[in-house]
Amino acid sequence: MSRFWSPVVHTLSPYVPGEQPKQGGLIKLNTNENPYPPSPRALAAIAAAVDRLRLYPDPGAGVLREAIAARYGVTSDQVFCGNGSDEILAHTFQALLKHDAPLLYPDITYSFYPVYCGLYDINYERVPLDAAMRAQLADYRRPSSAILLANPNAPTGIALPRAAIEELVAERPDRLVVIDEAYVDFGAESAVPLVARYDNLLVIQTLSKSRALAGLRVGFAIGQRLLIDALERVKDSFNSYPLDCLAIAGATAAIADDTWFEETRRRIMTSREKLVHDLSGLGFEVLPSAANFVFARHPRRRGAELAAGLRERGVLVRHFNKPRIEDFLRITVGTDEECGRLIALARDLV
Amino acid sequence: MSRFWSPVVHTLSPYVPGEQPKQGGLIKLNTNENPYPPSPRALAAIAAAVDRLRLYPDPGAGVLREAIAARYGVTSDQVFCGNGSDEILAHTFQALLKHDAPLLYPDITYSFYPVYCGLYDINYERVPLDAAMRAQLADYRRPSSAILLANPNAPTGIALPRAAIEELVAERPDRLVVIDEAYVDFGAESAVPLVARYDNLLVIQTLSKSRALAGLRVGFAIGQRLLIDALERVKDSFNSYPLDCLAIAGATAAIADDTWFEETRRRIMTSREKLVHDLSGLGFEVLPSAANFVFARHPRRRGAELAAGLRERGVLVRHFNKPRIEDFLRITVGTDEECGRLIALARDLV
Repeated sequence: MSRFWSPVVHTLSPYVPGEQPKQGGLIKLNTNENPYPPSPRALAAIAAAVDRLRLYPDPGAGVLREAIAARYGVTSDQVFCGNGSDEILAHTFQALLKHDAPLLYPDITYSFYPVYCGLYDINYERVPLDAAMRAQLADYRRPSSAILLANPNAPTGIALPRAAIEELVAERPDRLVVIDEAYVDFGAESAVPLVARYDNLLVIQTLSKSRALAGLRVGFAIGQRLLIDALERVKDSFNSYPLDCLAIAGATAAIADDTWFEETRRRIMTSREKLVHDLSGLGFEVLPSAANFVFARHPRRRGAELAAGLRERGVLVRHFNKPRIEDFLRITVGTDEECGRLIALARDLV
Repeated sequence: MSRFWSPVVHTLSPYVPGEQPKQGGLIKLNTNENPYPPSPRALAAIAAAVDRLRLYPDPGAGVLREAIAARYGVTSDQVFCGNGSDEILAHTFQALLKHDAPLLYPDITYSFYPVYCGLYDINYERVPLDAAMRAQLADYRRPSSAILLANPNAPTGIALPRAAIEELVAERPDRLVVIDEAYVDFGAESAVPLVARYDNLLVIQTLSKSRALAGLRVGFAIGQRLLIDALERVKDSFNSYPLDCLAIAGATAAIADDTWFEETRRRIMTSREKLVHDLSGLGFEVLPSAANFVFARHPRRRGAELAAGLRERGVLVRHFNKPRIEDFLRITVGTDEECGRLIALARDLV
């Protein structure tokens, strides 16, 4: 506490990201990174871009917006790029989610959402997932200015079909629906094809998971132009150049490399099915996952105890000490070898 | 305008950065970039860091904070790093400059400051520079919560000595003083050595100009720990990982390369003296600059007319269509060849 702090600073409860260990030798299944290196085309593009480092980057990241537009069948003025999807979420909360009527999001979801609400003093209500950890559309039929859903949801991994998203979007054209698709490429249906028909839909994605570029910090949003304009206005009032020239170059090449993308995500989905099978064989209850992680609990072991036991043995997983999910572990789908090591250790622990 | 916009979005007047031309062949003396490539050690460090792209970066950018602390004689908990000094300024406005009493800054200064005030609804007053475009300390002796000065000031290039900054900091320990030192390495005195003695001083620098890394987006702030804590709290409520792993690696190596740094900044200061001499020879009034740009006007030519004439002939300079400075040009110190070309064209135009 300090006399110089703005009042809001006293009230913040900052987000705590998963551990990035300083020491090597640990198996990292705790922050949903891709276990494979990114597209070689992204690496080549980064190497070629170092000649431009002395110059400011394009503040609008035009080439990247065009690559994303081409890949997803939208126009480039329907694309917004930012320093990871977290920055885009922050701008979205400030630009589009601060209204008198509350924002709705699930009680169990990405734990950064309430932090943004605190930062921007946004009125929100949490809508409980049902007993099976599923979002029920009927529960969102109450007064609100907007709905925010992670799809697949995190940390559950459970996805809603596109038809359910469309139902939400269509039933109240004056209510904004924001879909956070950080994990969509591992088997869920994207809402992007709905953007052409609905002006109250914003979809946010990231290159951190399915493109294996968590270290490059690039995300994007797709929506109709007035929504993108709001994000641009806030971004240009905050930081003109959020993406450095290496990130723009690497991300542009990564988006264009569909061969790498398809091969890698299929590989991870195959590993996920084996991981689910093996965890189930050890007696774990595993929620149905459409993400690059699984959310699982064991009927006879506390989540904190399992997470600590795994950590002692060199495997990091994520544990949330929160109501309803305190006995679950969120386990990233690593390589088959990494998952095998996890299963071997879990067998000893349960 | 859209029914989905948060109320603040309607009121924003976003910052407009200097042009980054799409076509080549233009001489860019408009955005204060360094005309020389960055330290080869920075480039080597970036190339070595691509192996880490699939992993999230260190959210606290620890190695960079330590390099900055070692270079500037502070501790690493007195250092905050961000996605360019613009992002750090944004966090500073939100975390430290929103109070009942107004923030004070000069009427002629970095034009992003009022934009931040609009974004965060901050109460501010502009304090006129004197007729010679200098900040007079006596003018800041009025009720306020904080003072923000760019030193050297932009776009004037005029610097205050460290003793003047210390006078401001010392006279009211309950008032925060923020010094934006984006251009300090080209001949001004940094306020960093005062940080050890004053808890009401925050100094912000960037690697964009004197380290030739505008394309990498890295800035830093130095201040006592409670000020840094406020920035960390806001940053961790906004975006956990603002610096990608390439930016952390490149910036860390750049900070450590004092040989490159000293050689390059001296070269630019030498070019600046020649540019000032040549502009004066053409009848320009040139303000005394301690930056990598000069601010100059001609007694017989309008600023807009000169900027347009230079642009037609392939040289970009910055012109601000604002009261008091509408007849000035802000001209970046380029290579001697680039400055020579500017002088030759200006000779034809005046």
